[in-house]
Amino acid sequence: MSRCLISKVEVQGFIERCMTGVGTKQHHARSLAEVLVEGDHRGHYSHGLNRMDMYVKDIQTGICAKDGEPVVEKESAATALVDGKNLLGPVVGNFCMNLAIKKAKEAGIGWVVAHGSNHYGIAGYYSMQALKENMIGMSFTNTSPLVVPTRGKDCTLGTNPISVAAPAKDGDSFVLDMATSAVALGKVELHERRGDTIPEGWGCDAQGKLTTDPKLVLSGGGLVPVGGSEATGGYKGYGLGMMVEVFCGILAGAQYSNHVRTWKVTDRVANLGQCFVAINPENFAPGFADRMSDLLSIQRGMEPVSGSCCGADKHCTLVNYMNECAKRVGVSPLLPCDNLISN
Amino acid sequence: MSRCLISKVEVQGFIERCMTGVGTKQHHARSLAEVLVEGDHRGHYSHGLNRMDMYVKDIQTGICAKDGEPVVEKESAATALVDGKNLLGPVVGNFCMNLAIKKAKEAGIGWVVAHGSNHYGIAGYYSMQALKENMIGMSFTNTSPLVVPTRGKDCTLGTNPISVAAPAKDGDSFVLDMATSAVALGKVELHERRGDTIPEGWGCDAQGKLTTDPKLVLSGGGLVPVGGSEATGGYKGYGLGMMVEVFCGILAGAQYSNHVRTWKVTDRVANLGQCFVAINPENFAPGFADRMSDLLSIQRGMEPVSGSCCGADKHCTLVNYMNECAKRVGVSPLLPCDNLISN
Repeated sequence: MSRCLISKVEVQGFIERCMTGVGTKQHHARSLAEVLVEGDHRGHYSHGLNRMDMYVKDIQTGICAKDGEPVVEKESAATALVDGKNLLGPVVGNFCMNLAIKKAKEAGIGWVVAHGSNHYGIAGYYSMQALKENMIGMSFTNTSPLVVPTRGKDCTLGTNPISVAAPAKDGDSFVLDMATSAVALGKVELHERRGDTIPEGWGCDAQGKLTTDPKLVLSGGGLVPVGGSEATGGYKGYGLGMMVEVFCGILAGAQYSNHVRTWKVTDRVANLGQCFVAINPENFAPGFADRMSDLLSIQRGMEPVSGSCCGADKHCTLVNYMNECAKRVGVSPLLPCDNLISN
Repeated sequence: MSRCLISKVEVQGFIERCMTGVGTKQHHARSLAEVLVEGDHRGHYSHGLNRMDMYVKDIQTGICAKDGEPVVEKESAATALVDGKNLLGPVVGNFCMNLAIKKAKEAGIGWVVAHGSNHYGIAGYYSMQALKENMIGMSFTNTSPLVVPTRGKDCTLGTNPISVAAPAKDGDSFVLDMATSAVALGKVELHERRGDTIPEGWGCDAQGKLTTDPKLVLSGGGLVPVGGSEATGGYKGYGLGMMVEVFCGILAGAQYSNHVRTWKVTDRVANLGQCFVAINPENFAPGFADRMSDLLSIQRGMEPVSGSCCGADKHCTLVNYMNECAKRVGVSPLLPCDNLISN
């Protein structure tokens, strides 16, 4: 399989071109592009360029709004309820996370929830915004029902990710960004697109049986919660998925559980619920960053740190796929690869 | 094996007798007894009467303080930092959770962290206090290092539980109360006391290998994070354990990670970090309880609800063990069983 390296700037410009090409406002397109590029950069390839055609289609069909800005419906010094006005997820996410950070500066904590939102890319993009202000950030979203709870056969919860970011010394940080399912659906999608099987314990078929065929998971089956089977603690992942739903769909008054529209069926607006939190360590014990750095040293000291990736490492099949999308939209393609990697 | 039923009132009185018998203040003993009885009542037998002798010993040896009350060191409308003054965990926990609820009434959210605390029983006891005020409650604590992170061989994190409680209609609620390890250590202890093996995937031996012998887990080995092996997402449980440590030891300025004293080695004060949160749904979208009830109906609708337990169902071996403790302390024993169950 051939791979190629493309600069972050080129990928970002490409996504902006495609999005503005279908009528997205320039600054909304930039918000989306930044989140997707960061998804690829952090290795969440399932939530990067791979997802662009979905956003293009959402704007083209008008199921996602092109115009307007999010609106604060209710607020206190430390809390806010936001109407995302059916705008692109990253537009809503940036608005809410900025508001949470502003509140945390004044009140020590900001807890902001939004209804009327859409897919917002990687959850970690928003939690990490708090790092720039030396704060702890959190972000949660519900998603289309894709997860089959422990002892169940139906998809009644989304992959409902949790992200937490905490600043350490000298720009270092802890960042957690995880689906509460065993894996994100995008990972199953990538395996399916490549024609690979998936490991046992990621998903089940329509009868609730574990399967290694990504096609069966994607057509009538579902993902299983982190923890896997009941014997190994899958009910904990189930409980965490419920927790995210409480913070998102339930608290925000958005769609929730199996009321959220089916994945990739855009017959109606998504109305996703999302939650954004910022916590100012200055309101608590002095020396937060020092302790964070020590905590990270303890964990890293056990094993060598694995190499961090740089550049956007792309499968050429994905690049070709997205350039087909660019052609349909009528914008210039991603630059031809100048580095070919065979693996 | 013989089992017996004992009334909650009798168990609570017994724990209060034992604790005041060694000099604990009456209202502190009551706090502890209420938490332990609730642990048994909710089926967390590992965190109920089973743990009483540890608290008795902590007071007897003076490693846990008998006198004083927790003190607020720093606060804003929505946040507080508390010094637990090395008092019993439930004394610190009740103080902090009450404070978080008070703040949430005024500011929409209360986020309170404590250093200088001790073992506080089940995390769910505190989160559930918020239900009485129709609020969402959360509670987190760090613990002695007992968990071996993914790709590691040393115990560098505690079982670091997460609890979230959310009110639904008519007194119904969602309550999550889970260790971020595959299981709580107490479950391994109970299996060891009964002479049973443990399922594969709960813990590892001193060499980091999975084992079914609880003795090897308890002597030099450790628990593994929820998710199990790396292939099945154990790194997610590892990340959640880190998140809890950030909210507890790091934010509160308590001990953290492998700086926390070894489990059951009471050579120095515990100085645990804990975090208590209350969120007022009234600050967000109207109709919270209705949506919560619908969410619970969707999940429960898939499978029959399992029967809830009532009364404190005890193994007679545990009762005999604790009556030995009562004898040493010089207080009257638990009432002899009037219901014997053989199983």
